[in-house]
Amino acid sequence: MDTRKGLAVLGSTGSVGVNTLDVVTAHPEQFVVVALAAHSNVDLLEEQTRRFRPRLAVLFEEDKAALLRQRLRGLDIEVDTGLEGLCRAATYSGVQLVMSAVVGSIGLLPTIRAVQAGINVALANKETLVMAGDLVIRPTEPTWGCIIPVDSEHNAIFQALHGHQRSALRRILLTASGGPFRAWSREAMQHVSIEQALQHPNWKMGRKITIDSATMMNKGLEVIEAHHLFHVPVEQVQIVVHPQSIIHSMVEFYDGSILAQLGIPDMRVPISYALAYPERLPNALPSLDLFEVQTLHFYPPDPERFPCLRLAFEAARVGGTMPAVLNAANEIAVQAFLDGLMPFLAIPAVIEATMAQHTPVALEDAPVALQADHWAREYAKAAVKELSLAKTVS
Amino acid sequence: MDTRKGLAVLGSTGSVGVNTLDVVTAHPEQFVVVALAAHSNVDLLEEQTRRFRPRLAVLFEEDKAALLRQRLRGLDIEVDTGLEGLCRAATYSGVQLVMSAVVGSIGLLPTIRAVQAGINVALANKETLVMAGDLVIRPTEPTWGCIIPVDSEHNAIFQALHGHQRSALRRILLTASGGPFRAWSREAMQHVSIEQALQHPNWKMGRKITIDSATMMNKGLEVIEAHHLFHVPVEQVQIVVHPQSIIHSMVEFYDGSILAQLGIPDMRVPISYALAYPERLPNALPSLDLFEVQTLHFYPPDPERFPCLRLAFEAARVGGTMPAVLNAANEIAVQAFLDGLMPFLAIPAVIEATMAQHTPVALEDAPVALQADHWAREYAKAAVKELSLAKTVS
Repeated sequence: MDTRKGLAVLGSTGSVGVNTLDVVTAHPEQFVVVALAAHSNVDLLEEQTRRFRPRLAVLFEEDKAALLRQRLRGLDIEVDTGLEGLCRAATYSGVQLVMSAVVGSIGLLPTIRAVQAGINVALANKETLVMAGDLVIRPTEPTWGCIIPVDSEHNAIFQALHGHQRSALRRILLTASGGPFRAWSREAMQHVSIEQALQHPNWKMGRKITIDSATMMNKGLEVIEAHHLFHVPVEQVQIVVHPQSIIHSMVEFYDGSILAQLGIPDMRVPISYALAYPERLPNALPSLDLFEVQTLHFYPPDPERFPCLRLAFEAARVGGTMPAVLNAANEIAVQAFLDGLMPFLAIPAVIEATMAQHTPVALEDAPVALQADHWAREYAKAAVKELSLAKTVS
Repeated sequence: MDTRKGLAVLGSTGSVGVNTLDVVTAHPEQFVVVALAAHSNVDLLEEQTRRFRPRLAVLFEEDKAALLRQRLRGLDIEVDTGLEGLCRAATYSGVQLVMSAVVGSIGLLPTIRAVQAGINVALANKETLVMAGDLVIRPTEPTWGCIIPVDSEHNAIFQALHGHQRSALRRILLTASGGPFRAWSREAMQHVSIEQALQHPNWKMGRKITIDSATMMNKGLEVIEAHHLFHVPVEQVQIVVHPQSIIHSMVEFYDGSILAQLGIPDMRVPISYALAYPERLPNALPSLDLFEVQTLHFYPPDPERFPCLRLAFEAARVGGTMPAVLNAANEIAVQAFLDGLMPFLAIPAVIEATMAQHTPVALEDAPVALQADHWAREYAKAAVKELSLAKTVS
């Protein structure tokens, strides 16, 4: 009998996906890759497919999928495409754990399908929880799969809570690097350049998430995620600015004990924890050297200079479709800033304007969330256009 | 049916005992006191007995026990005395948890008797593990009671490990305040006064343990305790000097994750955890305010300036009766320093001389440990006398 854990890796050609497959390569006795899925990188997915020999390979883009099917002719590997392809990969026979590392809202449906089928999901896709956390996390549905968060903060909280009495949770202390503008005045932040905003002090990440770190919207989105993942009101989530990013987050119990998870800033640590949970896998990464770090600092967040924090808390409190709107408007606004269409501080302004125009409704199913997402994108695009026209005129 | 946890509190009139009874008072629905035991404080034990109405009250000193028996005449409470009395209290019918908070080697036998009887022991007595850890911790005896450490460092490690894979433990990071002489040169430490040595930066404790903190022997003894409690060679225990004493200790797993327990420096936190384990009890203590703390520092320990650390590691490596000898010689040396008989830096010298004269033997039972303890005390006393004579002469 094959005792290896069967994996589906959605987003296998992105950085989390590639790191996931690295962990699998290091522990061939632990894992077998059942399905691989990616957006459009046909060359890398072909290479991964030849190496890991999954039973199913999916490319979201249809023409790329056709190309892959051609290239893999002769191998006994099925090729599929589209959102349905992703959902098939997530629930394919033999899959025991889905690594959901696709970018954007297309991650939502495959994750819901997997947990409904009782399959655990290692979740590296933010949008799923922000847009539709209530649809994914159902503590009252014991046959559903569980979500093991992969990003370093929620993975830290998950580790710190593991084995402890959930009902004794008093607060979540979500750490934040504070981003490149942690110590900047609001005045200085008005003239931030794209290059300045892309300088993250601790982590190397994609452009979108690096800007989210500079506006601290990433932390706002993480507050919403934590609220869903750990079933706590957002009032119980305290952001702690911790520039060294050594403590990845903490939980406080009602007896006054705080448990924290610390480590080097390397995504392979939470990825390997999520893959092996509830066990752990040894690795050859260096230990955190606290004597080299020597000092850790903690500061309260400043919602005046980082209005995205305030907007995220507000969206979470309103609930329903509002977090999906926050998230969609943010994506449009960040892209507009990266395209040079508007200044840095216009990002929260666009989001706030979009939220103000939205009438939130209850989240009954995924299409409701996707519809709100679509509406917010259109509205935010129009808002950006108005801003950039105003800029051109002035 | 009474669903309350039955407690025996050994050392009920000391600070840990009094705090334990405070927690019991705050949670009358959780605990019932079955037995109370103290050394000689007849007034306080009488008061506690009248309040908590245990079935058995023990005073170690026989004449004090007789006095208590007289005072409690008419109440249906048995009074006992001596080491046998302590052992009876630890294993009395209805006891489900022993809080072992007596001071010194008399704590050893009652703890062994309790765990042999399958009763869990919340252990606040250092000597038990240092002198005879191998006799108390028997991971291969599944019917034995388990030890829940009460002191803040080991309680932190216990909490951080709870629920996680023990075999994945890579290192224990035992934090140390560094004591009042953390930043002193060895030269300056030669002229330390008793008053200076009694100034501990973070915790208010008894005189003996405060001196142990100044020599860092407390950390050396804790290394030996951790080695037994968590079944790791001392080489896997790393002391981390952390002057703020906010992180109470950490564990590192072989996947690179570190889990730490933090909190305010208040003994009631670990006491309440040990009493309620594996659950937690809410309390009204203030939360740790990391924004007020703001900064945490970490330094490597310096065994050159703190030779007690080196001696403790050595004793643990030798094993057998050697840790008992280290502990006994230390007690004599600290008392001699507090009595003004010898200088501060003579403490490690007396211990080292005693260890050098000891031929360690295997720990077959408690009497072997107690015999080594007795021998070391006599030898160390003689060494002190020689030193103080030399001092008088010079």
